[in-house]
Amino acid sequence: MDSNVPVYLGIDGGGSKCRAIVTNADMEIIGTALAGPANPFHGYEAAIQSVVDASIGALRDAGFDAEHLCNLTAGVGLAGVNLPYLFERVSNWNHPFKSMHLTTDLHIASLGAHQGKDGAVIICGTGSCGYSWIKEQSRLVGGHGFPHGDKGSGAWLGLQIIEHVLEAMDEIAEPTSLVDAVLSQVDCEDDLGLVEKVAKFTPAQYGQLGNLAFDHAEKGDAVAIAIVKDGADYISAVGEKLFETDKTETLPLALIGGIAPRLVPFLSPSVSKRIVNAKYAPEIGAVLFAQSHLVAVA
Amino acid sequence: MDSNVPVYLGIDGGGSKCRAIVTNADMEIIGTALAGPANPFHGYEAAIQSVVDASIGALRDAGFDAEHLCNLTAGVGLAGVNLPYLFERVSNWNHPFKSMHLTTDLHIASLGAHQGKDGAVIICGTGSCGYSWIKEQSRLVGGHGFPHGDKGSGAWLGLQIIEHVLEAMDEIAEPTSLVDAVLSQVDCEDDLGLVEKVAKFTPAQYGQLGNLAFDHAEKGDAVAIAIVKDGADYISAVGEKLFETDKTETLPLALIGGIAPRLVPFLSPSVSKRIVNAKYAPEIGAVLFAQSHLVAVA
Repeated sequence: MDSNVPVYLGIDGGGSKCRAIVTNADMEIIGTALAGPANPFHGYEAAIQSVVDASIGALRDAGFDAEHLCNLTAGVGLAGVNLPYLFERVSNWNHPFKSMHLTTDLHIASLGAHQGKDGAVIICGTGSCGYSWIKEQSRLVGGHGFPHGDKGSGAWLGLQIIEHVLEAMDEIAEPTSLVDAVLSQVDCEDDLGLVEKVAKFTPAQYGQLGNLAFDHAEKGDAVAIAIVKDGADYISAVGEKLFETDKTETLPLALIGGIAPRLVPFLSPSVSKRIVNAKYAPEIGAVLFAQSHLVAVA
Repeated sequence: MDSNVPVYLGIDGGGSKCRAIVTNADMEIIGTALAGPANPFHGYEAAIQSVVDASIGALRDAGFDAEHLCNLTAGVGLAGVNLPYLFERVSNWNHPFKSMHLTTDLHIASLGAHQGKDGAVIICGTGSCGYSWIKEQSRLVGGHGFPHGDKGSGAWLGLQIIEHVLEAMDEIAEPTSLVDAVLSQVDCEDDLGLVEKVAKFTPAQYGQLGNLAFDHAEKGDAVAIAIVKDGADYISAVGEKLFETDKTETLPLALIGGIAPRLVPFLSPSVSKRIVNAKYAPEIGAVLFAQSHLVAVA
């Protein structure tokens, strides 16, 4: 078979973007593309459109046009489809592919990180979420969303910082070096200006403040240390929970996302000793997922 | 002068509604009305429209038509105008009244509560905020907004409850009687259903859960007690801060808003001993504010 012909499609669709790869029969990546938001909970039509746009983009990148979609075996991992009604709705989509194998973005992240084998992942980016895949069983811990969940995430850290900084400026909470750092990063002069800007903050904008917590914790600021420890303790508890159903006591854990590297030094030893580097990206996990179904069916 | 002729207009404009009263020359209320949201930070045009709608409504209630607006001396207290640019924008409004005296919703709440005299108020409703008016000087503590501020408010209590309930359902946080209570009140069966509903919660919807914290704290639930104490400690700290600039050590404090009565038993003794009942509503405070300007000018 021609090694330039796209056979598999891998989709990693999240709240802010949708990533696609196409591979040949030998699983070599021959095209990639990026499209818009693809979490059907925040808009079903937009999510479907992003999946199509990313797929066509990846095909074009490989030198093929949209008509080739019907030859692709698609592995599709999407945020939001842990909700049964959304899983059903996307499953019933009259998709343009040869076949579509749908699962969650967390499942493909775990399959990618651990080369299709059993393992666990904790996402530590703008949001936070734990997931394990053990003996064909998935388990989800956390991932409840912002601001009521996603503890330990970038957005959560940013929210804690803003809360404390505003209370410190009111002289109600203890002083912290975070006050000047936040005013400088958010580019405002006083609490009124800060309140005005923060009132329209998205989770992603809170997330951009997350690194300040680590910067100042590493410099010894007591408030920053307390915030980071509180978040890290939650992430450690998520890890412990994921390990509970692992009888081998060797389940590997990959930490994925923007603040993952900075969180590691603050995690409990029982969790940090299980940490491995993610082997492949989630979109490759999506292709592995599609492939495993073909094998199962054959 | 005819006691049925409207002379003063009092406006209390907040994030969800705008209240208006008209009084005769003797300060007797002869008409009242309610209109839509009136916080210019969340929409200048809508806020102005609500002020006009409420004013005309109150005039009609008194048996007068809109043409009588130009005879009214208006005291207008609005949320949001603590931001200087919004104060200026509303001040420059080509209003339909004889004269307009603009200040914050907190100022008129304090003037109303304390009959125009020096005093302090803490708002404990969907949001929270402290304010004092001492020797013509105002001081604002808290009131930063939700979710990054407004600690101790109904919305804040609801958010703490949801956070804890979701962690308890993940078996990460300690169990609490709040789990069943929240599932029942939000009308869902499991964590997935709860996450789905909460993802679209407004601060007001979080606020509707606030009373559950008190219900279960009063029944001895340790988690609910911890949440209520944390919120009440903040409100006490706001009170202490407001008293700092009061040399008389007798400044009266009125707690205003839906959860105020339930918070009182949890406040520190130094704060609760200063609590008095609010004498008049904020919209009457607005009339007192307008009147004080006339006296000052006269």
